[in-house]
Amino acid sequence: MTDVRFIKGHGTQNDFVVLPDADGDLELTAQRVRALCDRGRGLGADGVLRVVRTGASGVSAPDLDPDLWFMDYRNADGSAVEMCGNGVRVFAHYLVESGLVSPGEFAIGTRSGPKQVRVDVDGIVTVDMGAVRIGAPSTAVVGGRAFDGVAVDVGNPHLACVLGSADDQAEPRAEVLSGLDLTVPPTYDSGVFPAGVNVEFIVPIEENLARMRVHERGVGETRSCGTGTVAAVAAVLRSTGRSTGRVLVDTLGGRLTVTIGHDDSQLAGPAVLVAEGRLDALWWQQAGLD
Amino acid sequence: MTDVRFIKGHGTQNDFVVLPDADGDLELTAQRVRALCDRGRGLGADGVLRVVRTGASGVSAPDLDPDLWFMDYRNADGSAVEMCGNGVRVFAHYLVESGLVSPGEFAIGTRSGPKQVRVDVDGIVTVDMGAVRIGAPSTAVVGGRAFDGVAVDVGNPHLACVLGSADDQAEPRAEVLSGLDLTVPPTYDSGVFPAGVNVEFIVPIEENLARMRVHERGVGETRSCGTGTVAAVAAVLRSTGRSTGRVLVDTLGGRLTVTIGHDDSQLAGPAVLVAEGRLDALWWQQAGLD
Repeated sequence: MTDVRFIKGHGTQNDFVVLPDADGDLELTAQRVRALCDRGRGLGADGVLRVVRTGASGVSAPDLDPDLWFMDYRNADGSAVEMCGNGVRVFAHYLVESGLVSPGEFAIGTRSGPKQVRVDVDGIVTVDMGAVRIGAPSTAVVGGRAFDGVAVDVGNPHLACVLGSADDQAEPRAEVLSGLDLTVPPTYDSGVFPAGVNVEFIVPIEENLARMRVHERGVGETRSCGTGTVAAVAAVLRSTGRSTGRVLVDTLGGRLTVTIGHDDSQLAGPAVLVAEGRLDALWWQQAGLD
Repeated sequence: MTDVRFIKGHGTQNDFVVLPDADGDLELTAQRVRALCDRGRGLGADGVLRVVRTGASGVSAPDLDPDLWFMDYRNADGSAVEMCGNGVRVFAHYLVESGLVSPGEFAIGTRSGPKQVRVDVDGIVTVDMGAVRIGAPSTAVVGGRAFDGVAVDVGNPHLACVLGSADDQAEPRAEVLSGLDLTVPPTYDSGVFPAGVNVEFIVPIEENLARMRVHERGVGETRSCGTGTVAAVAAVLRSTGRSTGRVLVDTLGGRLTVTIGHDDSQLAGPAVLVAEGRLDALWWQQAGLD
């Protein structure tokens, strides 16, 4: 075995390989990220969370304290991503469980700036997701069917499509939601989203309860997406003329709570650590050669 | 963390969680197997390989030496399964890597009797898969299209469908193969296969080279299936009037070599260990409650 330690964890079944790397010694190439996340030949995950001091991260972050723990998040395709709401919860939970940070409130560095988190004793982690900016209306197409949506910026780009309203009958819309074939990426206006986009489909069930599915760029459909849930709730509130409020969201992987204020938003939900271990030396070496 | 150790490994990307349990102390319920194999909330795998002395396995195996290492194989759905050719390779590789057995030839206990294996220094593991019994012709239906196949018994039941022959043009048939939608289980004659069946689709490319896909009962499509590859090669040989021979098979997860004799068969291919570790105590406890 190598000295490369890992932790496997998930937040509402959005799953991650956590790599402790305080001093930034790990040679984490895009190939190795892809191999780690590959569900046949690796550990399997939606993404990798490298745990590194901001000053040793190799990421330019002049506004961050160099001693702050930095979440170096990579998607399964190897790309570096600004922010991941479920990832931050797993990351924060790991920091507390490993004794690197005391429980309660603290800050985590990310590519979209510092994020305030609170780790409660019941395992629920709340993340300050910052301001949510609603953009222009746009459309997502799945299986030849167009869905009206709206661009939402939560530190990364989203296209959130609300299927009907809580006043309509929920059941037919829930069936449309469960029938969507998201094994194929939704089509969107690449002029509006030149760097790609995460696409959410959300059905209001009651006034403050909704159900959603999400297609993450660079990953495919996942059972949950933190920033996507925030974006989708912003779109649901907008669809009923509200700009603030709290909505519970049932993702395929479990329930999240989103609170949207005038200049901020919060995502709360469980974070689970599954296992810890070390990577095989030969495997790690070969993963770097591909 | 618990004392529950695991190893993650794969054979041609058919991936497994290996659980060392020499004395049979582990409370491995079907719920825990499902949780371990779940790719969102667990480690994620096609199956679990419990490593236990035959005498401590709890499995009735009067024909086996009680000191023999027994492969207690469970599918991702929690069911116990007779035999798994890729699993045996990973199992044998683990026994050698962990020092429990010396490299070379040795026997492993399984629910379908003892299996002879050979672990070579190049990482290739060869497994004696026993006699292959060709049964009656039958048919698998995928996406409304029927494929002629044949029942093959390799210690577990298979329905192997050969698409054309090496004399035909390979390319159109390879396109049919890659176009099959195996996210939905193939339909088969449940009168012929009352306990379910693994279904293989195989395209001869050259006389002794073929390409295949497989749908495993209780799992779904996997990138490779050891017994399925043996069954599919038996069907390919049969389609050209041969009862013995050697064929290389490219699965989605890599290349396997199958040799079929008059009363025996051998499967050879790589086995890879990815990582080792321990399960989280709270996770293990909750996995037993579901």
